Order: sequence, then structure tokens, then C-alpha cells
Amino acid sequence: MTVTGPKGFRAAGVAAGIKQSGALDLALVVNDGPESAAAGVFTRNAVKAAPVLWSQEVLRHRKLRAVVLNSGGANAATGPGGFQDTHATAEKVGEVFETGAIEVAVCSTGLIGERLPMDAVLSGVDTAAKALDASPEASLNAATAIMTTDTKPKQSWKSHAAGWSIGGFAKGAGMLAPDLATMLSVITTDAVLEGDALDAALRAATRVTFDRLDVDGGTSTNDTVLLLSSGASGVTPALDDFTELLTAVSLDLVLQLRADSEGATKDVDVVVRGAASEQDAINVGRTVAEDNLVKTALFGSDPNWGRIAMAVGRSQAEVDPATLSITINGVPLFAHGTTAEDRSAADLSGRAIELVIDLGVGTSTATIYTTDLSHGYVEENSAYSS
Amino acid sequence: MTVTGPKGFRAAGVAAGIKQSGALDLALVVNDGPESAAAGVFTRNAVKAAPVLWSQEVLRHRKLRAVVLNSGGANAATGPGGFQDTHATAEKVGEVFETGAIEVAVCSTGLIGERLPMDAVLSGVDTAAKALDASPEASLNAATAIMTTDTKPKQSWKSHAAGWSIGGFAKGAGMLAPDLATMLSVITTDAVLEGDALDAALRAATRVTFDRLDVDGGTSTNDTVLLLSSGASGVTPALDDFTELLTAVSLDLVLQLRADSEGATKDVDVVVRGAASEQDAINVGRTVAEDNLVKTALFGSDPNWGRIAMAVGRSQAEVDPATLSITINGVPLFAHGTTAEDRSAADLSGRAIELVIDLGVGTSTATIYTTDLSHGYVEENSAYSS
Repeated sequence: MTVTGPKGFRAAGVAAGIKQSGALDLALVVNDGPESAAAGVFTRNAVKAAPVLWSQEVLRHRKLRAVVLNSGGANAATGPGGFQDTHATAEKVGEVFETGAIEVAVCSTGLIGERLPMDAVLSGVDTAAKALDASPEASLNAATAIMTTDTKPKQSWKSHAAGWSIGGFAKGAGMLAPDLATMLSVITTDAVLEGDALDAALRAATRVTFDRLDVDGGTSTNDTVLLLSSGASGVTPALDDFTELLTAVSLDLVLQLRADSEGATKDVDVVVRGAASEQDAINVGRTVAEDNLVKTALFGSDPNWGRIAMAVGRSQAEVDPATLSITINGVPLFAHGTTAEDRSAADLSGRAIELVIDLGVGTSTATIYTTDLSHGYVEENSAYSS
Repeated sequence: MTVTGPKGFRAAGVAAGIKQSGALDLALVVNDGPESAAAGVFTRNAVKAAPVLWSQEVLRHRKLRAVVLNSGGANAATGPGGFQDTHATAEKVGEVFETGAIEVAVCSTGLIGERLPMDAVLSGVDTAAKALDASPEASLNAATAIMTTDTKPKQSWKSHAAGWSIGGFAKGAGMLAPDLATMLSVITTDAVLEGDALDAALRAATRVTFDRLDVDGGTSTNDTVLLLSSGASGVTPALDDFTELLTAVSLDLVLQLRADSEGATKDVDVVVRGAASEQDAINVGRTVAEDNLVKTALFGSDPNWGRIAMAVGRSQAEVDPATLSITINGVPLFAHGTTAEDRSAADLSGRAIELVIDLGVGTSTATIYTTDLSHGYVEENSAYSS
């Protein structure tokens, strides 16, 4: 049990016929209460898909009764007609659960630019509604129904000793395959919290987890993370405790997303320390994480600190070459501006890679989660594979 | 004749023994006058190589008698010792030509983090000095001696009807191979211009040419473009005319650099129009040019406008999806917010790709020159090839 681990939630994943393959492609997550507070964070991309535009509006009210998610189409770049389709989907779910469409969030993932087959979507909602329950199978089906090129569903569930828990699923890792660019996640909890508290916790947790996953720089047209609370545990946790467990669940999902990035052969943590500000630390981390020369070197298991130094230098953070240090998998290769141990001392043959970059100009830190750049990535993402 | 095309210049390229292969690895360009005005632009990377630190200081005086360039080592991340080596090189050249080291610029390219073999460098200066002349062979040797993984030297020479000309050579295209990240260019002219005028012209020309070449986002530790004027034509051109020809020579070199990028199978022009500001146009162009999903789609000759839309949307420029249009090789695929022609109408099978992105929110424009992302790039840049 994951998304249905916390009390008060039911889920379903069905084959609605949106995907021509007949695979599971429509998921429902329903909050049976007693509470229905919710929060959401969405892509900053200026080209937002219809479901994002809809769900962003809905989440202003900080209440959700249900979330409907489909794969087989992102409903992005589909104009006013696409927005009508999202609205119709929310209306349908609202009708089935006798609630307002305003309490239904919608998420979609798949090809950009194509309208959804609405007959299939709407009948799929009916089918999913009949399949709802709180079982592990239902959680798994929901997590599976939103997959596009993921090779496995990503789920998490963590409990607090005081008797409440947080669960959830996620798909995508920032650009996994042609046209599919979406990261979606639904997280549930039976802790008792108001919408504003959920929103604060969600922003704090996503800031250091989902927002720090950077496989290839992309933030898609559809990225969405939703948090629903049923209050069914009866326990009101301290906000700090809740945020801590939510961050742990988010990180668990993010590391699974990173591990399943298509073509990735390395799990790379870019740990930045000693920065003048947190934003500097993030900028350095992202620049290194997105640098194709760093990423291809890592694909080749090559401890190429020179390329890392170059990426750090072009990040526009405060950088002083004389205080810069670079350590790879525990071996200091460049320390305070001069070459340290010989690069042959660093072993990058395994999957786990840790790059520690100490700027030596302050005390701020940030970690960015990324992967290498391999032939597999090029193969998956060039037309040859479609 | 290229760098020695304009009157008043001599050049040489010799094998000094810096490269173990015995290939040409040290070049000299000497300004015999009567004038010696000069200007230079340098990498913005915070991790600057010793020769960049030196040459930046020298160019404050806007006078150059000579430029010495070596391949076989970038002399970057080499600390105070590396700076001493650069200074010693400039002193040596100054001694040979009976001028101050302060009128000698130094450029280096090659591996980062290793000290240069100074015996070879200093004796190489003597050898080059003896080989100096104004012949086409000398120009070619100089252009060749600075090559690292370039497969061919890049040269240009354009004349103005009023009797003055601009010539030059360049190497590199922003990250071509392991550890080699340098773009170097020396441009000469026999037009009569003061140092400040040369500086203004150089900045104007590089702004729309060298600064718009973006193969993989990298600006290296060593990037340098130098402009020397001998005044030997006796003609003082209008600054506009000079800037126009200098921009043409710069663009000629940039397109050659782009075409020789290792692994590149496509020459991609990202043309941005209708932006709210020029900076917005540049940001959009760079984000699209650096986006790995766009670049891999182009490698596959796939007119994937959805990925382009996503890259535009995350560029942080002012973007309105309802006024956005995307045209590939002349075929409008997305127009004013809705799908236009079917993607099958766009032919990307050839090497030349033009992406025209009209934001429809203003009148500013910018063009970024880039390439696709291919298996060849991954192969060249992962350790397997070293």
C-alpha cells in the first residue's frame, strides 16, 4: 500500500483505451475524508498544459476530493479545446463522486500537441470509479496507469510513530523519451493539517527534492506534485515533523525516478558546499548537472575534474579558483586551487557517483540529483526509436 | 593568405615539442606596424587560465606587437606557477622582438591542470621567430599549430574596396573533446584605427557571432578573440564599415567552427523573432540550442516541435503560448498557439536545419548557432576514446 497507505484514501488504475496498446492509462485517487485539505506545485514552464492550468486554479481553494490522471496524451499545446477536455474530465469525476469539479484535479502525460480521445477518458472514469479500493493492488495499478516510458512504477510510504503516515506515487524523470516530458506525483496523508500548512510543507519538501532533480535541464509542460490530506488518523502533527517525513517520501520518489531515467548508467549526486548563498549553490549544482562534457565523462567513468571546474566557473555564482575544491567519490582531485591526488585514485566504475564541490567562499549548500549522458539517452531520444 | 592577408603582419607555426606527437604546436603572429593598436575579448568563465589572466591585463593598454599561441596544454588550473610560465613566454617573445612583454599576448589550449614544458615553449619561440613570413603557408601553419581536436584549420580573409582588409584564424567550437574546451581566434587588419575603436568594433562583432555559437553551453577557461591592427593600408575606414566587415569575418570563422564540431551531423540555426527584448531572444535561443531533447531529435531528423515549445517555455523569457509560432526548415508546424502543418511536411534529412521561433510578444531578434547531439558526441567525450 502506498498512495492508499494513509487512511481515508482509495485508488484505481484501469485501461480506458487512451493508449492504443491497451495498457493501464487512467488512474483515480479519491479522498474519503473526513478532511479534504490539499496543496499542489506545478511546472514553471510558461507553456503549461491544459490540466496544469485547470489544476493550478483548483488548488487555489486548497481542497481536493479526487485526482484523475491519464497517460497516453499530455493534453499540452492543445488550445481552448484541450482546456474544455480537461474541464469535462473534472466535471465527470465530480458527477460520479457528487462533488464540484472545483474539487477535482486533473493530470495528463504523453505526447504533446494532440487532443485526448474523450469518449475513452470519460468512460474510463466510470470504470475506475467502480474499481476503487484501498488495497496494495489498487495503489500499484494507479501508479502503473500513469507510466509512459518508465520501466517500473515508483511508490513510497512512510509512517510516523504517532500514528499517521504519508504515501504516494510518481512517474517520469524530466524527459525520458520522445515528447514525454512529464513528472507527475500524487502524495497522500492521513495527518490532520489545514491547506495552508500542507502548502508550506509541500513547498519546503519539493524545494529540496523534486526541484533538485535535474537529469537534462528540462522542466516540462506538465510537471505536477499534489498533496492530499484526509485527516483520517485524527492526529495533528507538528508542522516540522510533517515536513520532515514528507521530504523523506519525496526524496524516496525522486531517487527512484532518477534511477529509472532512460539511458542512465550512473546515479550522480552533485553536492555543493561553501557557497556564498543557497541560490549560488543551486546554480553551481545545476550547471554541473546539466553540463554535457561532465555527463559524458561520467558515462565513461572518467574522473575528469577539469570539466567540472569549467562548469563551476561558468555558473555565474561567486567562484574563486584559489579556494575551489573538487572531490569525486571521496578522493580529492583538486583542493584549494591546486591539483591534489592523482585522478587514478578515484574509482568511478560503479553506478553511484558523488561529486563534492566546495567553493570555499561561504557556508551555503545544495545537492542536485542527476545522471550521466550515455549512448542510451541519445538512442532513446532520437527518432530512431519511434 | 589569411592572418597575413592584411599588410604588416607575419606569422609562423612550428613543432616546438609541446605535443608529444610532434605536430605543429606553437604559433606566432607579429605586427610589423606602423601602428600597433589592439583589442581582445575573453571568456567570462570565473576559472580563467593563466594566459587569459595575462592577456586580459596586457590588452588594457590596447597595444600588441605580437601574439604567441600554443596547443598541447591549456595552462589552466595551474596556479601561480602557471602564471609565471605565461609571463616567461611573453618575456621571451618580447626579448626576441625587442619590445616589452606588456605588448605580447599569450594564448594556450589543451589539457587543463598540467604545467607546460617550458624548455620546449621557449625554444619554440626562437624557432618560430626564424620561420616568420607573410606567405599563405605561414598563415596556414599558424592556424594549424593551435588546433587540438579540430579536423581542419579555420581561416578567413575579406577585403574592402577602399583598400584595407581583415583576416584571421580560429580553433575550437566550445567543447570538442576530452578536456579541450578552448575557442581561440586571432584577427588582423591593416585598417588604421585607434585601440578604443578596435575594442568597440570587436565587442560589436563578437556579440553577434562568437558569443552566439553555442554547441553545448560551454564557455571555457581559455576562450579568447584578439584583434590587431597594423595600419599598413594607410586607410582609416568609417567605424561602421569596419565593424560590418569584421562581423563578416567573425561569422565566417564561427560557421567553420560549428561545421567542424566533433560528432555534429547537423548545422542548426536557432532564429528567434518577436521577443520582448534582445536578451529574451538570446535566452530563448540558448535554451533551445542547449536542450538535449531538441538536439537528439534533430540528430534523428525529427521535426519535434513539442520539445522546442517546452524549451522555449522554460527559458524564463516572456512567452505566451497563444502567440508562439515554430517553423522548421520553412514549414510552420505550430502557429499562434495551435498546430499548423503536419510534421511530415518538414524535411530535416539534410545537414542544414533552421528553427524559426516567433514569440509574437515584441520585435527583438537573435540567432544562435548550434549543432545536434549525436552518438558521435557521446563517443568523443566519454573516456572510451582516450
